[in-house]
Amino acid sequence: MSKKLSILDSSLRDGAQAEGISFSVEDKLALLELLDSHGLDYIEAGNPGSNPKDIEFFARAKAVRLKHARLAAFGSTRRRDTEVERDKNAQSLLLADTPVVVIFGKSWDFHVTDIIRASLDENLAMIRETLAFFKSRGKEVIFDAEHFFDGYKNNPDYALRTLRAAVEGGADTLVLCDTNGGSFPSEVGEIAARMAGAFETPLGIHAHDDCGMAVANSVAAVENGVRHVQGTYLGFGERCGNANLSTIIANLGVKRDYECLPPDQYRNIASVARHVAAISNVALSEREPFIGHSAFAHKGGMHIDGVNKASHSFEHIDPDRVGGQRRFLMSEVSGRRMILEKIWEIDPSVTKDDPVTDRIMKRLKEMEHEGYQFEGAEGSFELIVRKQLGKYRSFFDLMHFRIIGEQPAKGEYGSSAIIKIEVDGEDEITAAEGDGPVHALDRALRKALETFYPELANVHLTDYKVRVINGKDATAAKVRVLLQSTDGETIWTTIGVSTDIIEASWLALVDSIEYKLLKLEEARQRQTADRS
Amino acid sequence: MSKKLSILDSSLRDGAQAEGISFSVEDKLALLELLDSHGLDYIEAGNPGSNPKDIEFFARAKAVRLKHARLAAFGSTRRRDTEVERDKNAQSLLLADTPVVVIFGKSWDFHVTDIIRASLDENLAMIRETLAFFKSRGKEVIFDAEHFFDGYKNNPDYALRTLRAAVEGGADTLVLCDTNGGSFPSEVGEIAARMAGAFETPLGIHAHDDCGMAVANSVAAVENGVRHVQGTYLGFGERCGNANLSTIIANLGVKRDYECLPPDQYRNIASVARHVAAISNVALSEREPFIGHSAFAHKGGMHIDGVNKASHSFEHIDPDRVGGQRRFLMSEVSGRRMILEKIWEIDPSVTKDDPVTDRIMKRLKEMEHEGYQFEGAEGSFELIVRKQLGKYRSFFDLMHFRIIGEQPAKGEYGSSAIIKIEVDGEDEITAAEGDGPVHALDRALRKALETFYPELANVHLTDYKVRVINGKDATAAKVRVLLQSTDGETIWTTIGVSTDIIEASWLALVDSIEYKLLKLEEARQRQTADRS
Repeated sequence: MSKKLSILDSSLRDGAQAEGISFSVEDKLALLELLDSHGLDYIEAGNPGSNPKDIEFFARAKAVRLKHARLAAFGSTRRRDTEVERDKNAQSLLLADTPVVVIFGKSWDFHVTDIIRASLDENLAMIRETLAFFKSRGKEVIFDAEHFFDGYKNNPDYALRTLRAAVEGGADTLVLCDTNGGSFPSEVGEIAARMAGAFETPLGIHAHDDCGMAVANSVAAVENGVRHVQGTYLGFGERCGNANLSTIIANLGVKRDYECLPPDQYRNIASVARHVAAISNVALSEREPFIGHSAFAHKGGMHIDGVNKASHSFEHIDPDRVGGQRRFLMSEVSGRRMILEKIWEIDPSVTKDDPVTDRIMKRLKEMEHEGYQFEGAEGSFELIVRKQLGKYRSFFDLMHFRIIGEQPAKGEYGSSAIIKIEVDGEDEITAAEGDGPVHALDRALRKALETFYPELANVHLTDYKVRVINGKDATAAKVRVLLQSTDGETIWTTIGVSTDIIEASWLALVDSIEYKLLKLEEARQRQTADRS
Repeated sequence: MSKKLSILDSSLRDGAQAEGISFSVEDKLALLELLDSHGLDYIEAGNPGSNPKDIEFFARAKAVRLKHARLAAFGSTRRRDTEVERDKNAQSLLLADTPVVVIFGKSWDFHVTDIIRASLDENLAMIRETLAFFKSRGKEVIFDAEHFFDGYKNNPDYALRTLRAAVEGGADTLVLCDTNGGSFPSEVGEIAARMAGAFETPLGIHAHDDCGMAVANSVAAVENGVRHVQGTYLGFGERCGNANLSTIIANLGVKRDYECLPPDQYRNIASVARHVAAISNVALSEREPFIGHSAFAHKGGMHIDGVNKASHSFEHIDPDRVGGQRRFLMSEVSGRRMILEKIWEIDPSVTKDDPVTDRIMKRLKEMEHEGYQFEGAEGSFELIVRKQLGKYRSFFDLMHFRIIGEQPAKGEYGSSAIIKIEVDGEDEITAAEGDGPVHALDRALRKALETFYPELANVHLTDYKVRVINGKDATAAKVRVLLQSTDGETIWTTIGVSTDIIEASWLALVDSIEYKLLKLEEARQRQTADRS
């Protein structure tokens, strides 16, 4: 049996059903191009019948030249007692003008009788006729058998008849859906195997994560003969989400020998995931399999020792294969070698016995002792190393700032900040208000700096994390602030630690800005060097 | 075959290996009591051999009277070529003085020869002798066969011999570990079934989530004869985490008829999960199965319509069964029963149909919408209910406060606060400095209040937690502050939410003080009543 799987990503359709997700047309176009260039086979991008905004997207999507993927629109079978030609939903699907349509129909008898309130035979006609209609229009037609597993458990005979109706209508693929996410892998595997025995038409799986087993259900289906997998790249979707395609692809394409992506694309899995998260404005869980920041992070002393002896002792795959990064968490146990490896990323000429190595180690130890933690704060880490290597210059001096918070607030904002900085002997004093003292300070600093460095206008913060380190000291406790910044292309993270949250935030803010300005200066120096 | 499962929670041990997790001894004690009262069978609470701080915890844990759980300490087999009696790790485990020890040993020949560099026979002796030693000391001994699945795939004969050595040593349970998290449910199920056929001793499963299938692997093991399940309640742990016990318990105890918890505890799963998250200071994913805020949230119009016709049309279980909440994202509906139960704790005379119940529900909904969360903030919850019940009075009025933060700092402290309050028509204005703006404000408020309420001198804060709720808004994001306070006898927790960390902290501070003053007043009223 072929090991080629076809993958359908529904981030733009089922993913948009997730709480907190809201795509603009631009977001959708950006995701379409990204997922296409990653080599996914189908991109299901909207439900034009239920969401009129999707029509606009499909119109604009026509201008996108896809390299690999086929674009799909999603919609239901025709309404009961309606001719397909006159069905509004079918008309909307035609308007979307995609080469592929995904039609969902009911496979659970209870849903037919109690939810859409049609007769069981009428539902079969709805499936057959809707599919035949789109086949006659030259479309590739994927049939999503909604609630297939619940239907099969309740009335196997009727569930089978819905698949047969789809075959009669000309379905190119029959997708077994666990719409409510309630099935277990042992059930899914067994039922999928039976269907694979009963049908010639290729089978697919569409799983939801309500039992935390959507990935396992998809894998079980494939192990039992299914060759088409639906999901969303990061697993977001209605309720607990859809099957996470990045995990499924890594499991089946990297750990097993199924073909899910073009061979050179597996090592982009982690970066594509981060990119999807950024466009979708969702935080990627640190412990997401394969792609999370902690996925190959080792903290326990025995684990670090083991991985240094042989990486597979505590890693189920080589992180390189999915573009992940092995990290030894810089805790008290962190050794010299791992810090050296980080130094080499910045300056490969530093030797192990160079006195600067000792100085860097000493400085890092001191800072860790103060509560710094460089796992996930690579921007600040790089600045510390650069300072010791003499590869750093400061871009401004703080003369002073003062923040004021008042209750009751006198206007829209409760906080304001005054700041005075100096750049190359020139002063700038300004002020700003904000939602809190840190927000006011952030705004004031940027306002002051942009007069000298207009390129900072592109830079903005994308995440702000506060962790109280020694909470038991209550409001006198130390706080650690982590800031994530972006210029739209790259992302960097910086850290500040202090008993004063304002100061901790300030330190992280300054690092964020200096990091960016250093990178810009280096890029300019490289350009000048290239030209001369 | 019995359907009783024994559950071992390792949040305090394997969970502490997670990136970003750092428990104080107080946190660990709070989690121990919480998980015990939830009815878990074993709580594995530390590794005294590798972490000397755990010794302090175990000493203090002796004072905790557990209602259900047995406390376990975790450690490795003895070192090679060492007598168990003289092995430092074994001595540390004895010092922990727990009724249960969990001993891990190597089941993968490659780990024996290449990582710990012992002979294969010596490893078997290490397992056998270490277990026999603890059995002779009267302990219940659980054997964690580390890397069992990788070992079995590589050298099944040797992997089996390690289990036999454990049986010879007297193991009460043999736990098959997927330490690197690389196995698939089909493999785990098949291997577990073989082991269940080969051994009389009860079997366990310990899965990691590197393939996103730790829950499914645990379920597959149980379906094939395993009766002991290890994991962490929220799934955090080394790398991608451990098997998520809350999901496994809901899957097997609620959806199948395994016994995982006392029958009345299943509907506490969601609230226990939120409580564990609050103590551990980790954000609970919205889409976490069963317990996440979105787990029973319906956004799609057809789904909402379906659930209104028959809830099982788009829900795999009734959310009440795990204490979850159905939410229609357009119009939120609340878990009335759960809140009523909390109201009754404060005033048992309130009836279900009392209009005050509606008012409380409405107020809570509003506040939850703003980012409040009352699990782990019982002090604030009680105040809200009291306000609606008319069982509240305020003890002071804030006229205004102003905090100032300056850099560079002019003296020892960078922050100062001025506050003016009024008590019974009398003003008090004062000021204080502090390590940060919140610290200064806390000090100033106490200073002002102690002139009126000297009994507040006993009250101090024991913990301060800050969580950024919507980090993507960066420094304009909302923050949730949780304060834990004590008067030396009782502990209470309060909450504040705002885009301004100063205001959020202020709200939590005021609740903390008012809660204490209300309790003092009630105690005095009871004394007066008793006397008259």
